[in-house]
Amino acid sequence: MNNRMTTYILGKMLGVEALVLLIPAFVSWLYNEDGWRFFLITSAILTVVYLAFGKKKPKNSTIYGRDGFIIIACAWILWSLFGALPFWLSGEIPSYVDAFFETVSGFTTTGSTILTDASSLAMGMNFWRCFTHWIGGMGVLVFVMVIVSLEDKNSMHLMRAEVPGPETDKLVPKARDTAKILYGMYLVLTITEVIFLLAGGMSLYDSVIHSFSTAGTGGFNNRSNSVAYYDSAYIDGVITVFMILFGINFNVYYFLLLKKVKAVFKNEELRAYLGVILGATILITINILRVYETPLRAFRYAIFQVSAIITTTGFVTADFNLWPEFSKCILLLLMVVGACAGSTGGGMKVSRILIMLKSVKREMKRLLHPQSVNLVKINQKKISESTMQGVYMYFIAYIAVFIVSVLVVSLNNFDFTTTFSGVLTTLNNVGPGLAGVGPIENFSKFSVLSKLVFCADMLIGRLEVFPFLMLLSPNLWRKKF
Amino acid sequence: MNNRMTTYILGKMLGVEALVLLIPAFVSWLYNEDGWRFFLITSAILTVVYLAFGKKKPKNSTIYGRDGFIIIACAWILWSLFGALPFWLSGEIPSYVDAFFETVSGFTTTGSTILTDASSLAMGMNFWRCFTHWIGGMGVLVFVMVIVSLEDKNSMHLMRAEVPGPETDKLVPKARDTAKILYGMYLVLTITEVIFLLAGGMSLYDSVIHSFSTAGTGGFNNRSNSVAYYDSAYIDGVITVFMILFGINFNVYYFLLLKKVKAVFKNEELRAYLGVILGATILITINILRVYETPLRAFRYAIFQVSAIITTTGFVTADFNLWPEFSKCILLLLMVVGACAGSTGGGMKVSRILIMLKSVKREMKRLLHPQSVNLVKINQKKISESTMQGVYMYFIAYIAVFIVSVLVVSLNNFDFTTTFSGVLTTLNNVGPGLAGVGPIENFSKFSVLSKLVFCADMLIGRLEVFPFLMLLSPNLWRKKF
Repeated sequence: MNNRMTTYILGKMLGVEALVLLIPAFVSWLYNEDGWRFFLITSAILTVVYLAFGKKKPKNSTIYGRDGFIIIACAWILWSLFGALPFWLSGEIPSYVDAFFETVSGFTTTGSTILTDASSLAMGMNFWRCFTHWIGGMGVLVFVMVIVSLEDKNSMHLMRAEVPGPETDKLVPKARDTAKILYGMYLVLTITEVIFLLAGGMSLYDSVIHSFSTAGTGGFNNRSNSVAYYDSAYIDGVITVFMILFGINFNVYYFLLLKKVKAVFKNEELRAYLGVILGATILITINILRVYETPLRAFRYAIFQVSAIITTTGFVTADFNLWPEFSKCILLLLMVVGACAGSTGGGMKVSRILIMLKSVKREMKRLLHPQSVNLVKINQKKISESTMQGVYMYFIAYIAVFIVSVLVVSLNNFDFTTTFSGVLTTLNNVGPGLAGVGPIENFSKFSVLSKLVFCADMLIGRLEVFPFLMLLSPNLWRKKF
Repeated sequence: MNNRMTTYILGKMLGVEALVLLIPAFVSWLYNEDGWRFFLITSAILTVVYLAFGKKKPKNSTIYGRDGFIIIACAWILWSLFGALPFWLSGEIPSYVDAFFETVSGFTTTGSTILTDASSLAMGMNFWRCFTHWIGGMGVLVFVMVIVSLEDKNSMHLMRAEVPGPETDKLVPKARDTAKILYGMYLVLTITEVIFLLAGGMSLYDSVIHSFSTAGTGGFNNRSNSVAYYDSAYIDGVITVFMILFGINFNVYYFLLLKKVKAVFKNEELRAYLGVILGATILITINILRVYETPLRAFRYAIFQVSAIITTTGFVTADFNLWPEFSKCILLLLMVVGACAGSTGGGMKVSRILIMLKSVKREMKRLLHPQSVNLVKINQKKISESTMQGVYMYFIAYIAVFIVSVLVVSLNNFDFTTTFSGVLTTLNNVGPGLAGVGPIENFSKFSVLSKLVFCADMLIGRLEVFPFLMLLSPNLWRKKF
């Protein structure tokens, strides 16, 4: 355990947050709001922290696997703790716990909110709120790696803990280069969406924050009724397409850049992901036909909500809480499925589901023919037993966290659907749930304890369970190494 | 695949059901009801089937693993299909699907009912209904093995598929002797309960059917308000104790008979099971204090419902649907946990939960110290990787079945709590759920499709997923061996 190096890296990371906060400060100043002061105050505090811890590099710069877990978990908590300050200092969110909830929801790209009306927030504040989605989408740490240099031997430990999915591939040998390529593609896709939204008559501000929110698969925006506000088939369409695009593994785009089109078509996860979107859309369209005037309208809402939920963005164009139970159950299921590994989306990830379903199929074969040797393959590539073991452990730990969270939140005594879907939507970083946390509701009604559980769930979901569980493990702290 | 042997064994098993039906026929006649005719008719039909298939043993008497799965799955379906006939023929349950539901619920020891008032059923019919619990508890096949001889080499294949838990131990070298010992202990415990209930002033008939129901951890009885009807602390107490006893692995009783008391005290699953009952009872007692006049009353209802749910018996003394959400969520969780492996209870079984939690703990250790070797141990005994693999596969398949069932049942458009808890309670063979399937409700309101899904869930839960999934697997049918 290398404590000095851990605080050094954390200090450096908070220094980057100090820089990042200058952007919303500028936006705030641009719109003649007085919010810039609170961004600058927070930035100043962070700079002090940076100067205290992140300036002088320790002699021994080697970090170990366990340091990686601590750094990642602490970085996300610290970024959220400090990132919440502007909301709270400005009085726009009077309770610090609420401000923290909102910031965690931002960085983890969940999009659950404690605000009753997001349109009442100052423009600079809402810019920051949506910008946290954009940074959190690709990863706080990946972002830091683009800005400052960490030694390559350390970076992979950290990246592995932050990039979602059962396996982390480096696109290129150096982790920092990988981070830069990822952010480059991310930026280009985001700007493309901005252009498309501008073309649909959206204001520049709205286009930018909606693109941040789509890119990070977050769900925050500046409207109390989310994307339904615009009531435009064009805007719904653009956002639907980009939600789906940001739910795809970014390796796919890299392959496209390298013109490896064949590899893209053969990508099993991608095909399953698109297949699930298509299937769910058809089922829901049929199921909600009688709710809407025309089949086309039903289809428009169905595909938007299916994409918003499976990518865990959580934008809303229709109050799906009023849809028939079957459609609601499909949406709950999509929350769990989530997007592709290596995308900005949350949930369990399509590839984990594929691995699990294939391993059950293998088990059935094994029971019928005990002597046969069966491998689990994805994209014609054998999945190693240790990866599969990791997937099973992730699944069990995930369900355990889910159950404990439901139990604690149930102390609030809201109805079961509210409790259940509230935990599901935060743990999978989706945003809205059903009933009391449905599309037109928010999370302000919960107790402080429940809100903290939701915060933990959002972080646990975003960091894929283990870095956070580690932090709670006595083993991590007890022994000296 | 040995089709001749499969039909021979199934024929023999149906012959045993023909014999079994003589018991309710006798009870019916004893109480001067005319129901005995329908039992005899059914028995006659079964005898014909037996004579056609179960009389002549094929030359090649070897069965294979896959035959075992088919036999077990088919045996349970056939016993239920024929066992439902008396209810339907007599007109006591006018719909055959309902009669089938009730019989599946009986044999699988679920105890979910489509009857609005169980007290309206004729005594012979209700005797049969509760007797199915008793037979199903220890296993239809284990019961058959006591009555007729199957070759030992075949028996273990079958027993393994029917006895619940991650591993099946034979108590003694011969499977049939094991079956006899199990049934002996089962009978003694059941009779003991009858005596205790008689001592509390219950009629002989009521004592017997309640003991059947407790022993099989079923939940059927002859009262519309279940055990609440008696409103007696003594009877609640007796049934609580026996529910807990029947939720314990029967190996424990065998060890007690052999005076291996130390092994019993060291049994980790037993300690965890009792610990969970104690913990859940304390939490619920505190949580429902304000609902009841005295803490003692709260405790009495809490420990009864905790025992009834974790053992998956499903008896009811209090309408826990009116309890606070926290208590309800604990009960839902207990449904999933279930009783001990090798008991008559359902659910996932405490030992599987232990194995899963320990393997997550091991994974966390492994992530911190990649070089260390960690074994998962239960009762100081190493759990083999293949057993653990089996547990993971069971868990994934179980969750998959759960999700698919919720989706199909949600087409009925009942509220989410009803759908969710309905599937949970049937898949875990508990009985009552919450909301629309709560303690004072029943399953008659569902569509035929939903009822069939519930039947499948009850069977899947009782046979622990794989034998049934196998039946649906094209692999089983496609290839020749």
